[in-house]
Amino acid sequence: MESFDGEMNGGLREVMHKEKKVLNRGFVELVEWMGGDEAVIRNARRCWRSASKGTESDRKLLKHLLLKGHKTPFEAMVFTFDIKCPLFVARQWFRHRMGSFNEESLRYCVAEREYFVPEGLPAKLRDEWREHQEETFTLYEQMISRHSLRREAARAILPIGIYTRFYWTVNGSSLMNFLLLRTSRQAQREIRAYARAILEIVSTVAPWSFSIFQEFVLKGGESGSHEEA
Amino acid sequence: MESFDGEMNGGLREVMHKEKKVLNRGFVELVEWMGGDEAVIRNARRCWRSASKGTESDRKLLKHLLLKGHKTPFEAMVFTFDIKCPLFVARQWFRHRMGSFNEESLRYCVAEREYFVPEGLPAKLRDEWREHQEETFTLYEQMISRHSLRREAARAILPIGIYTRFYWTVNGSSLMNFLLLRTSRQAQREIRAYARAILEIVSTVAPWSFSIFQEFVLKGGESGSHEEA
Amino acid sequence: MESFDGEMNGGLREVMHKEKKVLNRGFVELVEWMGGDEAVIRNARRCWRSASKGTESDRKLLKHLLLKGHKTPFEAMVFTFDIKCPLFVARQWFRHRMGSFNEESLRYCVAEREYFVPEGLPAKLRDEWREHQEETFTLYEQMISRHSLRREAARAILPIGIYTRFYWTVNGSSLMNFLLLRTSRQAQREIRAYARAILEIVSTVAPWSFSIFQEFVLKGGESGSHEEA
Amino acid sequence: MESFDGEMNGGLREVMHKEKKVLNRGFVELVEWMGGDEAVIRNARRCWRSASKGTESDRKLLKHLLLKGHKTPFEAMVFTFDIKCPLFVARQWFRHRMGSFNEESLRYCVAEREYFVPEGLPAKLRDEWREHQEETFTLYEQMISRHSLRREAARAILPIGIYTRFYWTVNGSSLMNFLLLRTSRQAQREIRAYARAILEIVSTVAPWSFSIFQEFVLKGGESGSHEEA
Repeated sequence: MESFDGEMNGGLREVMHKEKKVLNRGFVELVEWMGGDEAVIRNARRCWRSASKGTESDRKLLKHLLLKGHKTPFEAMVFTFDIKCPLFVARQWFRHRMGSFNEESLRYCVAEREYFVPEGLPAKLRDEWREHQEETFTLYEQMISRHSLRREAARAILPIGIYTRFYWTVNGSSLMNFLLLRTSRQAQREIRAYARAILEIVSTVAPWSFSIFQEFVLKGGESGSHEEA
Repeated sequence: MESFDGEMNGGLREVMHKEKKVLNRGFVELVEWMGGDEAVIRNARRCWRSASKGTESDRKLLKHLLLKGHKTPFEAMVFTFDIKCPLFVARQWFRHRMGSFNEESLRYCVAEREYFVPEGLPAKLRDEWREHQEETFTLYEQMISRHSLRREAARAILPIGIYTRFYWTVNGSSLMNFLLLRTSRQAQREIRAYARAILEIVSTVAPWSFSIFQEFVLKGGESGSHEEA
Repeated sequence: MESFDGEMNGGLREVMHKEKKVLNRGFVELVEWMGGDEAVIRNARRCWRSASKGTESDRKLLKHLLLKGHKTPFEAMVFTFDIKCPLFVARQWFRHRMGSFNEESLRYCVAEREYFVPEGLPAKLRDEWREHQEETFTLYEQMISRHSLRREAARAILPIGIYTRFYWTVNGSSLMNFLLLRTSRQAQREIRAYARAILEIVSTVAPWSFSIFQEFVLKGGESGSHEEA
Repeated sequence: MESFDGEMNGGLREVMHKEKKVLNRGFVELVEWMGGDEAVIRNARRCWRSASKGTESDRKLLKHLLLKGHKTPFEAMVFTFDIKCPLFVARQWFRHRMGSFNEESLRYCVAEREYFVPEGLPAKLRDEWREHQEETFTLYEQMISRHSLRREAARAILPIGIYTRFYWTVNGSSLMNFLLLRTSRQAQREIRAYARAILEIVSTVAPWSFSIFQEFVLKGGESGSHEEA
């Protein structure tokens, strides 16, 4: 099945180790992965003691797995992303329990002046927003430097829109669940932007799995996500 | 083993459905549970096809399980708590992936004016803190009511110290892991207050398991928790 | 919403602590539970800070949650079952990782002469099957008692159809996933018998959740389960 | 930190895609991995926004993480193994819920005549063991081919010592937990052989993490594992 390597290597050079910009200050970047389409097919075929049979039959198998909810083979592909996003987006992200997060901590680091500004605000409101946020950071910094308040307590005054950074390691099955819920029209606009960026990246890494996923699972985009917010 | 019911019922009436105050505006409350010491012992003894043998031998078994890291029997006891805490505490809490969280959402609800104020601030600083927070909430409310900004975006200006509420369902084994990390001296003071309150409550529900846990696992309190912050 | 208690108590007395027979020697028995419909509704409504609104609106909510895949609220109900089943059924069961198992161990206990006999075998074949199994157990017992082979090694000669016993603690969401895969026509006949027995029991405990689950999720029964076998 | 690549590449060529023999017919083979020491250090340092500082300080960090139970950074390294082992060993293995398994299924495949024979049996007993097992397989094959019994039911007569094959994908943290419990003197001799083989392999892939793990966590080897059997 030569197509795997042939197709992928070109695109992979484009997506690995490149920050893909999201929102006013954020990004996602693929830093590591293993598996891909080949591993999913190999693992699924273990069930019948069979090996990959070439293009068409493998594609059919992937479609069957995705439509019937056989998720285990997709756990054979794993990704690590470097992510920078507003804290309210990170909170939605961390609700997805199947995956691991390593995040910078404001117990140990001093927060940088980077915060979310909603798109589409009239100029006057945007200025008011920014001005208030700048004052907030000034107050925060004074609490720490001048009044020796613990960083971990001083952060309580910082806005929920502050940017944070974390590594996210997640397998293909859990990633699809994330994408299903977070590209949905019910999901918040801001996390949808991240979900779409990630979908683009992984579609380069495992093109078969994620094109079938998009066509047959995401399609209608009807699935909701009101609650984990 | 009559002691189970005899001992517990008195104390249980005290702890069920009562808000135990924590920090300036928070609380924890036990709303539901199943299992307890009896279930742990029953499940552990299944391994040898044996039944509870009475006080001393059962205590010894519990101690053996805790010291050797045999965690599965403790998954037979499960608790649901109602919790109100600052968002920065909730973020630490939600890092514990083995358990389930149902939280109120600021995508659908308007935030209430309840926020964390660090203890021990000099009066002048505390006033400055409060004043700035009140301004923040006023700006937030204007963004929503006057300028029709989406609630889910407007919340980005709210402080990380805002109070949130959630239900937490967790089994005994995962709870012990939470308590080990979050009562530790390395944990942040604020979440330690919650962890201690919960430890008190569950010590009434499953007195044997948690007294042995306190004596032999927590004791030194040396275990750290720098990272999940 | 008085219907909860009114409806349930009658039926519950029937299903708690009663062995429900399955296959030639097996059973399932509910030994403990918490939560139920009420807890699911309470947890789901936390999202909007709302309380139960009475019959119709609560039913609608449960249906919405189930159809949209919002699983977290169902994690507020938890069950512990006592189960006796052939080992090849237990192997399929233990593939469901979200739940906890406490099983008797043939490292410590000597196996009892209880084994699966396929239904519908002609009498002559059934006799041959039984005779061979009895010889197997005799050989097993001799290996242990006469030749001092370790129990844990001697069991290697025992049949995969031997009966085992375990406690299973599982929340409502994981249980539904189990039921979806194991009541399916693709599932093995023997585990389907267990899945149906469990579905009957929990339908008494949480009648709303599981009747809606049956009507709208299970219905077609098309979902497959070929792989975890 | 050139040592990573320098040290590893040589040894890796030795361990990747090579069957390492275990017991009379089994093996383990590393088929894929990502991460390694570098990823663990990178993820752990994210907490403080710091980068790798070179040999000594990184080693110290790894030791600190392992001793304090900070497991998340080790989830950044992931392995896939191909494993062939007796079914009673697989049953112990599958109790480790944090990882994914893709196993061949005797619902779809006909079992091969490969079964465990305990080491150290006197010749006469070993012959008796083998003879009985061969008869068992003959009966199994007749049930399927001559009497058209479903494969999935016929397997009930096969021995628990039959060999099975599966892929196992597991992260570094869960792997360490497996190794801690399964290299222990309380673990069954047969699974200990597999655990040691895997420890050797991963010690080549992530030499720092696993040498510190061996020295400071495994050392005494006192931790027990009686129950998951």
